[in-house]
Amino acid sequence: MDLKDTIRTIPDFPKPGIIFRDVTTLFKQPQAYKQLIDGMVTSLAGRQIDLVVGPEARGFVIGSALAYALGAGFVLARKPGKLPCETIRYEYALEYGSDALEIHADSITPGQSVVLVDDLLATGGTALATIRLIEQAGGKVAAARFAIELCDLNGRERLRGYDVEAVLQY
Amino acid sequence: MDLKDTIRTIPDFPKPGIIFRDVTTLFKQPQAYKQLIDGMVTSLAGRQIDLVVGPEARGFVIGSALAYALGAGFVLARKPGKLPCETIRYEYALEYGSDALEIHADSITPGQSVVLVDDLLATGGTALATIRLIEQAGGKVAAARFAIELCDLNGRERLRGYDVEAVLQY
Repeated sequence: MDLKDTIRTIPDFPKPGIIFRDVTTLFKQPQAYKQLIDGMVTSLAGRQIDLVVGPEARGFVIGSALAYALGAGFVLARKPGKLPCETIRYEYALEYGSDALEIHADSITPGQSVVLVDDLLATGGTALATIRLIEQAGGKVAAARFAIELCDLNGRERLRGYDVEAVLQY
Repeated sequence: MDLKDTIRTIPDFPKPGIIFRDVTTLFKQPQAYKQLIDGMVTSLAGRQIDLVVGPEARGFVIGSALAYALGAGFVLARKPGKLPCETIRYEYALEYGSDALEIHADSITPGQSVVLVDDLLATGGTALATIRLIEQAGGKVAAARFAIELCDLNGRERLRGYDVEAVLQY
């Protein structure tokens, strides 16, 4: 199945001029969803992965299924104030203003092999923030995996030095 | 493994007098996470499940792994304004004020067999809202599954008539 056929394209969302790639139409199709996750598993074959980290909220959808498929644990990277226990935080710049992500301070045991997963690689800001959190907690970033890469935005360049793959490229 | 041993208890969160059951400490342990999902799969054995619906955000973590394990699709029930295409919405009362959930209007094909999954069954408000959305979209609610049930809050009573199971009860 060509997974691109399952992605819905929405013009001018969230603002004029942006072409939004909607992955929810992929998620709801059992065969497409399985193909997405299994493709990521194949791309990590033969490697010991202890944890998958996914940023809020669509990263949870792909990351947790990948964690299950790999026999790994899943760690939530959340917006500030959502996690109930002690956290570490990483702030990062947006086009206007800034944003931040947190993980629980004890969510990663130093030395664990960790995969970052998200639905979208755009400018790479969220991905890089998540990588910094993994490393701050002592984890080793084994790979970064995405459902979709928007190549024009050059996020891959910001993740140079890491093993980066996306299932679909636009 | 006794999964209760993996749940972290946080007193007075998010406000004084509340005992918060933190499932993130379960999610990060591969064996516990697998046991949680596989237990839900077993509880649905022999039934055709087309879709799993999970409410934002921890429902995404369990629901998407369960969808993958069942060979089903996954549908996101989100807070208002987060989904990019046409939605249906259900508003529900909270102790103070109200909240709402949305799913994409075309996310469920009428007649599909759907399982609702969330981390927590407390008062049942979120679960009932999700069930109403599934039914409004034409889906058949095959079952509702939760990681944790807080029995004192009697959410199960509000879901009477549905097949409700929780892996852990407090």
